[in-house]
Amino acid sequence: MKNFKYRNPVKILFGEGMIKEMSKEIAQKERILLIYGGGSIFKNGVYKQVTEALEGYQLFEFGGIEPNPHYETCVRAVEFIHKENITFVLAVGGGSVIDATKFIVAAACYKGDAWDLMLGNAPIKAALPFGTVLTLPATGSEMNSGFVITKHATQEKLAMGSPLCFPQFSVLDPLTTLSLPATQTANGIIDAFVHVTEQYVTCPQDAPLQDRFAESILQVLVEEGKKIVADPSNVAVRANIMWAATWALNNWIGQGVDDDWATHMIGHELTAFHGIDHGQTLAIVLPGLLDVMRNYKKAKIIQMGERVFHIHANNEQEAINQTIEAVEKFFNSLGIKTRLSDYNVTETVIPKIVQRFQERGWLLGEEERITPEIVAEILRRRL
Amino acid sequence: MKNFKYRNPVKILFGEGMIKEMSKEIAQKERILLIYGGGSIFKNGVYKQVTEALEGYQLFEFGGIEPNPHYETCVRAVEFIHKENITFVLAVGGGSVIDATKFIVAAACYKGDAWDLMLGNAPIKAALPFGTVLTLPATGSEMNSGFVITKHATQEKLAMGSPLCFPQFSVLDPLTTLSLPATQTANGIIDAFVHVTEQYVTCPQDAPLQDRFAESILQVLVEEGKKIVADPSNVAVRANIMWAATWALNNWIGQGVDDDWATHMIGHELTAFHGIDHGQTLAIVLPGLLDVMRNYKKAKIIQMGERVFHIHANNEQEAINQTIEAVEKFFNSLGIKTRLSDYNVTETVIPKIVQRFQERGWLLGEEERITPEIVAEILRRRL
Repeated sequence: MKNFKYRNPVKILFGEGMIKEMSKEIAQKERILLIYGGGSIFKNGVYKQVTEALEGYQLFEFGGIEPNPHYETCVRAVEFIHKENITFVLAVGGGSVIDATKFIVAAACYKGDAWDLMLGNAPIKAALPFGTVLTLPATGSEMNSGFVITKHATQEKLAMGSPLCFPQFSVLDPLTTLSLPATQTANGIIDAFVHVTEQYVTCPQDAPLQDRFAESILQVLVEEGKKIVADPSNVAVRANIMWAATWALNNWIGQGVDDDWATHMIGHELTAFHGIDHGQTLAIVLPGLLDVMRNYKKAKIIQMGERVFHIHANNEQEAINQTIEAVEKFFNSLGIKTRLSDYNVTETVIPKIVQRFQERGWLLGEEERITPEIVAEILRRRL
Repeated sequence: MKNFKYRNPVKILFGEGMIKEMSKEIAQKERILLIYGGGSIFKNGVYKQVTEALEGYQLFEFGGIEPNPHYETCVRAVEFIHKENITFVLAVGGGSVIDATKFIVAAACYKGDAWDLMLGNAPIKAALPFGTVLTLPATGSEMNSGFVITKHATQEKLAMGSPLCFPQFSVLDPLTTLSLPATQTANGIIDAFVHVTEQYVTCPQDAPLQDRFAESILQVLVEEGKKIVADPSNVAVRANIMWAATWALNNWIGQGVDDDWATHMIGHELTAFHGIDHGQTLAIVLPGLLDVMRNYKKAKIIQMGERVFHIHANNEQEAINQTIEAVEKFFNSLGIKTRLSDYNVTETVIPKIVQRFQERGWLLGEEERITPEIVAEILRRRL
């Protein structure tokens, strides 16, 4: 285990009916901007619950945050914040809305072009306080300080983070997820699953607690994932998935160990070029990455196979094959397809993605072993 | 899973040499009181590292916190704080020193007799800020807000907690544990193990993530515990034990589930009456508690047997027997004896303990099923 510093100050309000507890976390004087996405919160009753919980507050609204939230939209929210002297922001939605909100609260306190913050050209030195009401378990954004923003004009999708971008609180009510389409539930489970593998299926780290916590999350996602496919109305199962997804990326399992994130980086490009759902891109890329990096990541792939999928093969290569197959089958069992061709993407995307990584000089993976050429090989195996 | 609110704001500085990072966490203007125990920090070099890390600060010292820290000693520390206008406290030691510090920082802000705070007669409304340098992995006190204090005059040992009693930071450097006597290392592992069982071996809860995280901690304690007996100088193993012990009682695995704590409550009385080490009392009591409560806790005992000790028996009662035996053998393998007679305690203690619980009207366990009569039966099985 390596040295680390760890702090996660987010207050979690978990369970059915917890939205109404929210007002205890926000001072009465705040001018609150409620930020949301495409409007599903009007259909599923969450908007009503939130506004009832905040009755008596000065409440403003900014909707229309898109999936893979756009820089351009966020900038409009910042203008709104300045115009209305907003002092507290409440994100109501999934990871896109929460990610957008993190960028918005930082951008609202920055004088220059806020894209500087995403490029790392300017450090985040201040941010408005904010809370979240999560409606889609997936990204873990509700209990971490990171965010991913897309500049629509240039199709760039970049990740950033700051200790100033932790939510003050997050409400996790599994009832809010009941009306999700099956694909979104599945995408969320896959996103959480791959958040774990990015931090766990690496070179060996001698961090057995982190390993076993990672395996715990994967096991819960696999077991409860099966149950939710069979019975989408099971709120107890939804609660377990919701809590597991939060812990998949609240920075805990990644403490003291190297992490990979290549699957995400490659997936982001598939979204940028083809608009494929984030979870789907991960389901496409991960089996390819494990396959190409099979010898380097051997010990951890086999460990995951044994402890998560109960695989005991005759030899190492066979164990790896069976584990990769089990991962892909799990994604498929959730109804998510795992080949580029399933999304009408051809090999023409490969040189475009390779070029991007070459231009940026990015080497991916826990020891920067994943060159643009290896990215190409990973994608070729997923055609 | 039940509804819950969860927040743990403690910043962890983990790893070899991290004591020197501490000064970044304390403002230069603070008047710091360093609180420590019996003086082992002078022998193991920790005192030197701490004072070097805090060179240039106004530093005061208060030593002599005893194991199972005494109210009477803490009151003297409070007087010292008032006299010297201390503004920040640094606990350097194990759980006793940290627990004492939590009580002291709260008592320093309370006007009346501070024992009121322990009795719950007065709520904790303020506390001085404090940090910790952990030297004995065991209690989890470094990352939670609870504490246990003993009133020496009356042999009362009571537990209390407050969100105001979270450390601002805790330094966990496994090197500080290298000089621990084997018995203290073993006691610490057992304390952490039983912290987990108190929150996990209960009636079924449908909280699979909490279950698996609990099992993760238990597995790490068992596996790394064996390694540390074989090679006490292994710092990497000590690091893993240290981190596991912190997570055994930082409130995470207990979220959304009922917890028991009967083993601790009974153990506290054995310490109060006979001065037996806290870890040893738990090693004595837990096998008896699991035995007496075997049918009520059946599902979880069998699950622990399978997942932690790899037990697969022919029938339920046999699985329970083998699991209890495995737990006791694990404690013994660390060099800790598990019978009252090993500590020259006879059955005469039983009515005394029963009388205490009767007087307080305490029913123990996750559903208050453990009456004073059941306490007596648990102890009879441990003679």
